[in-house]
Amino acid sequence: MGTKAMDPRKSNSTPTPFFLLFSLFSLAACHEHHPLDPLTPFEQTQVQTIVKSLYQNVTFHYVGLDEPDKAAVLSWLSSPQTNQIPDRQAFVIARADSQSHEIVVNLATKEVVTDKVYDGYGYPMLTFEEQAAATQLPLTYAPFLASIEKRGLILDQVFCGSFTVGWYGSEASKRVVRLMCYYINGTINFYMRPIEGITFTVDLEEMKIIGYHDRVVVPVPKADGTDYREAVQKSTFDNHLKSITILQPDGPSFTVEGHTVRWANWEFHVAFDMRSGPIISLASIYDHKEDEYRRVMYRGFVSELFVPYMDLTEEWYYRTFLDAGEFGFGQSAVPLQPLRDCPENAMFLDGYFTAQDGTPAKISNVFCLFERYAGDIMWRHTEGALPGDLVTEVRPDVSLVLRMVSTVANYDYVIDWEFKQTGTIKVTAGLTGLLAVRGSIYTHKDQIMQEEYGTLLAENVLGPYHDHFISFHLDLDIDGETNSFVKAKLQRARVTDGRSPRKSYWRVVNETAKRESDAKINLGSGATEILVTNPNKKTKVGNDIGYRLIPRTVASRLLANDDYPQKRAAFTKYNVWVTPYNRSEKWAGGLFVDQSHGDDNLATWSLRDREIEKKDIVLWYTLGFHHVPCSEDFPIMPTLTNGFELKPTNFFDYNPMLKFKPLKQVPTPSNSTSSIHLLPQ
Amino acid sequence: MGTKAMDPRKSNSTPTPFFLLFSLFSLAACHEHHPLDPLTPFEQTQVQTIVKSLYQNVTFHYVGLDEPDKAAVLSWLSSPQTNQIPDRQAFVIARADSQSHEIVVNLATKEVVTDKVYDGYGYPMLTFEEQAAATQLPLTYAPFLASIEKRGLILDQVFCGSFTVGWYGSEASKRVVRLMCYYINGTINFYMRPIEGITFTVDLEEMKIIGYHDRVVVPVPKADGTDYREAVQKSTFDNHLKSITILQPDGPSFTVEGHTVRWANWEFHVAFDMRSGPIISLASIYDHKEDEYRRVMYRGFVSELFVPYMDLTEEWYYRTFLDAGEFGFGQSAVPLQPLRDCPENAMFLDGYFTAQDGTPAKISNVFCLFERYAGDIMWRHTEGALPGDLVTEVRPDVSLVLRMVSTVANYDYVIDWEFKQTGTIKVTAGLTGLLAVRGSIYTHKDQIMQEEYGTLLAENVLGPYHDHFISFHLDLDIDGETNSFVKAKLQRARVTDGRSPRKSYWRVVNETAKRESDAKINLGSGATEILVTNPNKKTKVGNDIGYRLIPRTVASRLLANDDYPQKRAAFTKYNVWVTPYNRSEKWAGGLFVDQSHGDDNLATWSLRDREIEKKDIVLWYTLGFHHVPCSEDFPIMPTLTNGFELKPTNFFDYNPMLKFKPLKQVPTPSNSTSSIHLLPQ
Repeated sequence: MGTKAMDPRKSNSTPTPFFLLFSLFSLAACHEHHPLDPLTPFEQTQVQTIVKSLYQNVTFHYVGLDEPDKAAVLSWLSSPQTNQIPDRQAFVIARADSQSHEIVVNLATKEVVTDKVYDGYGYPMLTFEEQAAATQLPLTYAPFLASIEKRGLILDQVFCGSFTVGWYGSEASKRVVRLMCYYINGTINFYMRPIEGITFTVDLEEMKIIGYHDRVVVPVPKADGTDYREAVQKSTFDNHLKSITILQPDGPSFTVEGHTVRWANWEFHVAFDMRSGPIISLASIYDHKEDEYRRVMYRGFVSELFVPYMDLTEEWYYRTFLDAGEFGFGQSAVPLQPLRDCPENAMFLDGYFTAQDGTPAKISNVFCLFERYAGDIMWRHTEGALPGDLVTEVRPDVSLVLRMVSTVANYDYVIDWEFKQTGTIKVTAGLTGLLAVRGSIYTHKDQIMQEEYGTLLAENVLGPYHDHFISFHLDLDIDGETNSFVKAKLQRARVTDGRSPRKSYWRVVNETAKRESDAKINLGSGATEILVTNPNKKTKVGNDIGYRLIPRTVASRLLANDDYPQKRAAFTKYNVWVTPYNRSEKWAGGLFVDQSHGDDNLATWSLRDREIEKKDIVLWYTLGFHHVPCSEDFPIMPTLTNGFELKPTNFFDYNPMLKFKPLKQVPTPSNSTSSIHLLPQ
Repeated sequence: MGTKAMDPRKSNSTPTPFFLLFSLFSLAACHEHHPLDPLTPFEQTQVQTIVKSLYQNVTFHYVGLDEPDKAAVLSWLSSPQTNQIPDRQAFVIARADSQSHEIVVNLATKEVVTDKVYDGYGYPMLTFEEQAAATQLPLTYAPFLASIEKRGLILDQVFCGSFTVGWYGSEASKRVVRLMCYYINGTINFYMRPIEGITFTVDLEEMKIIGYHDRVVVPVPKADGTDYREAVQKSTFDNHLKSITILQPDGPSFTVEGHTVRWANWEFHVAFDMRSGPIISLASIYDHKEDEYRRVMYRGFVSELFVPYMDLTEEWYYRTFLDAGEFGFGQSAVPLQPLRDCPENAMFLDGYFTAQDGTPAKISNVFCLFERYAGDIMWRHTEGALPGDLVTEVRPDVSLVLRMVSTVANYDYVIDWEFKQTGTIKVTAGLTGLLAVRGSIYTHKDQIMQEEYGTLLAENVLGPYHDHFISFHLDLDIDGETNSFVKAKLQRARVTDGRSPRKSYWRVVNETAKRESDAKINLGSGATEILVTNPNKKTKVGNDIGYRLIPRTVASRLLANDDYPQKRAAFTKYNVWVTPYNRSEKWAGGLFVDQSHGDDNLATWSLRDREIEKKDIVLWYTLGFHHVPCSEDFPIMPTLTNGFELKPTNFFDYNPMLKFKPLKQVPTPSNSTSSIHLLPQ
């Protein structure tokens, strides 16, 4: 939610000069690309040139790889030496002549394949540049200057941010944003100092203020206690923590070749996309019994986010953000800080997005990759029942994490894709950063006599209730494309036939979903295991090969179905959906999300109720947080965590780590491993 | 579930000679004890002497600290120099003259305070020694020898285990166990080789077989592929993992003084109990604003486990184990293996339980304590909107973990109590080890034409469906004893008054539980936050001081209320219960659990529907796993994880880690922290 008015990577996003890119790129020929590689800066520049040759005045809102047909990728993959590699194509969303264009550019032929004007509801992702321009407008806008003066504030300490406006039932709409202004004066944490009561509307096409309302004056919360920088704390306390480090004396165990990561028994491809962030492709796990890599996931990525606030006041009601489609979850990524955002043993990867004018912009350290060694146990057993010594066999758990942090204005989302040697893919979403808070007249809860839609966090600071939903597109290919979706229902059964002294037990009733409508599920109330199986492949003893979705904490949407934001984010209606693979169905909230009407999204696609049994299917899982802010979230939030796991379930014939050598561990002399004793000896 | 026939710690549990204990113990005077310290070996020996002076033939089933009155502990704690320390007392459950005794011994006066014969339903925890004796009986029992011969098995490769029998409605019962035998021949993993079809009943008082039925011959599953020891694998594979180590060059940051652990802003007391394992007491967190430690939890521990199997066959239906009360979750703990069970920076603590004859028995390394540094982020934000450089402020997360592993026969439970600097207490339960499996005639799923209550995992190996419920007794004292239990219900509200273009939102409706019946909750279907608050204390802006329970994956029981095992384990009827503090209400399944009838447990105590508002209350949370075994669980299970968090929620006035210095991190020269680049440069 919210948005950046300026590119947060400005300090290290200087576009590389074109000629330099070209000269370096010539070293790597096109056909060396993996077909799922993201566009290189050179390719982005090619796209820029080609699209600019079509339209003189054009702004680039999205530039990314035009995903090749899955069949073509898989065909190439089956024999990369002999089979044709799909042509590199770019997909562009641009604005020209006040229209939204969907443009496909073939990078091999350097031709425009399609150029389609989009005439449906909704607008493209906002660019940083237009937001930066919009947020400058107030500083010379006379009515606002009067408002600032009326409040006794210093203009050069005012900072404004831009916010998408949602949709509330009107038929016609312009491409507009709202602005919200903050007071910096004495803190970097201006988000805690809203200048409340003012509504701005800015027409982005004409880049001018078309609406202004100064409704009410509310005290600006004080700066004191809001700055989170170590350097500016008046007093700091020492928690007496001695240094702690992850040490890999022989370096990391993974390799990165092009965009392909190999580690332990895993292999996958990772790409950066300016809309979704990390895209994991072709995740496959080595099965030593079969002596081959077996595919688990063709493609997995954050498809959309939904962050509706529950505050109905005039300046807040519209805040029902779809962060990926409106602001770009990928382009909002920030450079990861070594030793802080990722541990000592991390390696960092860069990514590129496209600026409004089509120029490639680099995000340094957009991903980190590290081996996670948290002291957990992969498997163990102690056997003391047999004669002779106690047998203890333990395997410590080491996994591989790919991390990105997307800072969508005030909130920081930490997204981890974690690969475990046992075959589990674990996705964790951490929420930290700054709350969006409302300026309030109240300094104590006892003063509040009406519904205020949030928690009073500090004097004059109210933290409105809100949700965060993150929807994942998980194109699982469990040992191949032909998969089914199975609900394994754990059902209580009564014993009525006297076959046992028991009166009840539970059994498992498997239901294979035939159509999309069978796979729309809200989890939580019943005991149902969610499986994606390959009904054409069996374990040695005949079980369907499968993977199981294990959600962590389930949160379901609370908005009403007929409410506008809920229609737009109808993918949150269920926690789980399954669709047949369709190359165009990537974005759960639709392709053009800003001011969308909800007529093109996961919920509407699914109305066709297509067959999904023994098909190439896509699993959509939406994890959620209902956030009731508390004082500990002020002025900066400790990380809130949720996630899910994809766990092999009758995928292997036996524990896949049974026959692997344990991790070699070397006790370091400076660590104490001696026992200390609680009791007098 | 299941039980050890022999003490798994025999290799290092040699009782310390009495005189040696005495001479060493004289160095530490009695009054130096914290009132919640577990009994020392010297005290255990005192108890042994005193109880043996009462009864010539006595067996000790439980010996532990008789928990002093809470008021007395808190009074002492408020001024340890001046106030009276409560007398040290031991609580003993013993069998003498075929009766169960509850004996309280005062260790200061060396007197028996009470000796009560228990005449209700149920029996004490089993001892290792009586189980070892029982499991020897088959080896000379003629009908069994015939059964073994009929099956063509070698007697000296047969191993039997003992299992509690539950209760199925009969009025009178003897103190009995059932036996289940396994075939070792060629594997250490005899649990995968059940000798199926035979039922034994052993009278423990007379120590003889009183029932035997060889119902059916089923093939014994083969040994091949079942052994999990690295040393005996025919071929092992290399996952090419380079070594990875946690390094603390200056040593750990925590101290252990007596049984009191201090680390960062946390302080707590830890004791080992032979029934529950680790008991965390007086967990308090330092508030730099108040310059004092504020109490969060008076006492927290595993109260009971419930592991019912869903297999109705004659040899399996009764398996509905209550692991803590029947087998001793604490005495089943195993010595933790340095570098494997706990990372390099761990320190280890010992614990003592009491053998059947009253002699103290040591479990070396029963706990480990380590600082966990998993690469997670405690809080962060990147601010790029303001002129000047990008500001990135990140605090890596380091926490403190206390770990115990309890190996209740085949299953290994990993219990972590984790303390976070932000104030969260996170409890994680990991399940690994070996499934209890049933021998089966089937070698392929296609052969199965009837209900088999489980998954075919390998040839002739069936993994019956089962549950694991772990109930935690959480005597929270949120900033003092007077607490309330609040359900914060997130409720959809419709907008009907035109105050907003929105049609819906959600609001928070707080319900403070007045009585126990208001606090019985099954989570999952609704959106409810669970809080324990201190209504007498407020944050600066007037919010009730509180902590929130955040469950991970919720699992609710599926057995019917009128079923016998469910009556006994009625604490699983709800995920959450709240009771007023009562010194005697510690064990959710009752004190005498073996063959209990369910007439003395959390559910029956709660029928009194006592007042719980503004009282000293205890929160009970039961986490659960429904386990549908899969082939990856064979022959040894990768860890399944669940847990919960207790998170400060308006406990502090602001983020408690705002003003603490970040962890000092030193990049080590051998670690690479340089970027690698995905794209050609």
